[in-house]
Amino acid sequence: MTTATNPQTHLATAHKQTPVRIGLLGLGTVGTGVYKMLSRFENVTIRKIAVKDITKQRQLTEIPQDILTESVESVVSDPDIDLIVEVMGGKEFPYQIIKSALAAGKHVVTANKVVIANYGDELFQLASQNGVNLLFEAAVAGGIPIVLPLRTSLAGNRIQQIAGILNGTTNYILTRMEQAGLDFTDALKEAQQMGFAEADPTADVEGHDAACKIAILSAISCQKQVDQAAIHTEGISSIGAIDIDMARELGYAIRLIALYKAGEDQRVDIRVHPMLIPVSHPLSKIMFENNAIWVKGDAVGDVMFYGKGAGELPTASAVVGDIFLLVHALQNGQTSLAGLHFNLEGKASPLPMHDTVNAYYIRLETQDEAGVIGQLGKACGEHGVSLTAVMQKGIDPQTQSATIVLLTHDVQEANLQAALKAMQAQSTTRKIHTVLRVFQP
Amino acid sequence: MTTATNPQTHLATAHKQTPVRIGLLGLGTVGTGVYKMLSRFENVTIRKIAVKDITKQRQLTEIPQDILTESVESVVSDPDIDLIVEVMGGKEFPYQIIKSALAAGKHVVTANKVVIANYGDELFQLASQNGVNLLFEAAVAGGIPIVLPLRTSLAGNRIQQIAGILNGTTNYILTRMEQAGLDFTDALKEAQQMGFAEADPTADVEGHDAACKIAILSAISCQKQVDQAAIHTEGISSIGAIDIDMARELGYAIRLIALYKAGEDQRVDIRVHPMLIPVSHPLSKIMFENNAIWVKGDAVGDVMFYGKGAGELPTASAVVGDIFLLVHALQNGQTSLAGLHFNLEGKASPLPMHDTVNAYYIRLETQDEAGVIGQLGKACGEHGVSLTAVMQKGIDPQTQSATIVLLTHDVQEANLQAALKAMQAQSTTRKIHTVLRVFQP
Repeated sequence: MTTATNPQTHLATAHKQTPVRIGLLGLGTVGTGVYKMLSRFENVTIRKIAVKDITKQRQLTEIPQDILTESVESVVSDPDIDLIVEVMGGKEFPYQIIKSALAAGKHVVTANKVVIANYGDELFQLASQNGVNLLFEAAVAGGIPIVLPLRTSLAGNRIQQIAGILNGTTNYILTRMEQAGLDFTDALKEAQQMGFAEADPTADVEGHDAACKIAILSAISCQKQVDQAAIHTEGISSIGAIDIDMARELGYAIRLIALYKAGEDQRVDIRVHPMLIPVSHPLSKIMFENNAIWVKGDAVGDVMFYGKGAGELPTASAVVGDIFLLVHALQNGQTSLAGLHFNLEGKASPLPMHDTVNAYYIRLETQDEAGVIGQLGKACGEHGVSLTAVMQKGIDPQTQSATIVLLTHDVQEANLQAALKAMQAQSTTRKIHTVLRVFQP
Repeated sequence: MTTATNPQTHLATAHKQTPVRIGLLGLGTVGTGVYKMLSRFENVTIRKIAVKDITKQRQLTEIPQDILTESVESVVSDPDIDLIVEVMGGKEFPYQIIKSALAAGKHVVTANKVVIANYGDELFQLASQNGVNLLFEAAVAGGIPIVLPLRTSLAGNRIQQIAGILNGTTNYILTRMEQAGLDFTDALKEAQQMGFAEADPTADVEGHDAACKIAILSAISCQKQVDQAAIHTEGISSIGAIDIDMARELGYAIRLIALYKAGEDQRVDIRVHPMLIPVSHPLSKIMFENNAIWVKGDAVGDVMFYGKGAGELPTASAVVGDIFLLVHALQNGQTSLAGLHFNLEGKASPLPMHDTVNAYYIRLETQDEAGVIGQLGKACGEHGVSLTAVMQKGIDPQTQSATIVLLTHDVQEANLQAALKAMQAQSTTRKIHTVLRVFQP
């Protein structure tokens, strides 16, 4: 737009052609970042910006008032716009709008994880049919390049496993619980004060945000639509400071993990829940609001991508990367990135939880009596659950309760649940507080 | 080639067109990996393979004998080949061959870091002029996606700094010195036994391999050719087990770092040498033969890419990723990836070492006399070098020598060298053993 220095001249201005004309939908955090970044380049021009309220005072005072509009539809239907950048957020409305844009033959770049996770198959097909691209690098892990590397550099691999720390809020909370011995509630409050958690933190804390993102990475990996609603999702609100301590003593850190595993017969195992990560594994070292995606491919082995998963400029960086990909193709006489069309064939049904196989961490409270551990072991053994570690922690003098932690070998979740039921039924068991799964790279 | 299951069907067989015809140059470790991976896909066909000796017994017994040839030139000039995959290794011969292939209008995918680092500008220009692509993801860090992400997803950023652990051999050696207290020589021997170091380890141990790789990443970042020969390169052979210990006590790990820093006035600071990495930084956690590239962009902030930097299948993974990018474009009626042409404009001259600014770690041996530390401090002060830490280690009873370690604030290398000279001239100084720079993210 302006003639300021271009960070990467080869990509940005190799060809001094008519700038590609962009319609920007949304001027919140990410939209503002996109505007700022694009204003350094002369091979694009922002023709219109749809906002909720054109009279609002804005941080960016240099935006010409006449390109602002309150009508999203007028931007999408503008014949002088080549490329729609959707950063409004939401679900049904942006879904409808992206559909209209693709049907009108416009390319779309979006940061909207909810729309891609829920309507990806339909939208990708519509894009292919109309000879345009729908790009969404920013929908997963902010500025960290992961969508495009999975779709290009790693495309010769069978992706065997993905384990992602895809939500900065929960990772911040778990890090603070770990570092400062805070309870979940206090760590959440601190995250809210620091601006890392929303006033209503449900989507982050209960794992729904991470579920959208792993739905998208899973779809790329298995080539099928993965509905967010089909993904088993547990949050971190029931984890106690004591679990973090006990995990550490056993050689683990606790992280909220979004998991994808390719199985045999095209079965896929996709879920979001907290896990114990061995401290020797790089995922255990991801601190504070950072994200990381660990990928295991049959050729490449283990690779990991790390960085800030959110924020104005990190997310804008991903949006702008997608925009440039399209811009270079369009300015070189191509009408689309033909090689980046993709179609999902059918839906993948994640393995039901009771069929998944895991090692488990169980923390329970029992009466302080001789033979308790033996009884628990017996209940496990009877359901095919074998233990690798048993740890008893000091007795609470008031309640005469003992805290016991069990670690199991790999076992099917159905068996584990049966063993938990049996343990719960024992008269010496007061409460099963926490059941977590153990990550196995 | 065969009809076996395709890992990523959307990319590989979305369009059942005539397979893209490949000429493979080299059937060593990487070439064998490429052959294995491509044999799972039906959208490519390997038409010819150039090898040194067609009579040699091979691991891959299924290769039809009639596609083998000892004439590299006959592959490059074959009109029925669309795409040349160069994995022979070497410098002048593959350079000439890649030139011929590009001039003949063939796309080229190469894993050859030496050729790209030394002749990139000329070859990229030749590719653009001939409307073909030269792709080289595998030239840096094996299977870890870094070249393409820098050129695409991160293209809206000004890349401010890159710090790479780009050589697995030296990282293995440093990890073993750290973990087991081995000397350099013993750790090298172990690395050779484990197959992580060559019989002649010079290129790895002295940093030349890493220099090629950072030359390539720097060229992408600053858009100018960076000659490998212009990069100041120091290896790890002079690091003692004691340095690793002292660094750890001060809160650092030692790693061989390939560094790129964008300066003002288009000055660039590019070099390869061991550095002290704060243990809080993710690069300090990269162990054994793994590689990692930490990138700081003005929008994205810090991102890091991690994985195996070498090996048959990891490197083949990157080569095949590049091949597929081209294959998808070609099978969708495009003649090239027009958006991925790039031209380097002129040469970048890395800042001379004496102009660089660093914090330093200095280990020296002095006589055991009162006032020695004061004298060293004075020599530093007179040359504008200010100290942040001084540590004295036990006296050697035989030689009556004291080991002293100094850590400095940021200072220009010219001043540091003058201070070292002054310290060396002091009668109480027996030897300055080690001078290392400290990494600052």
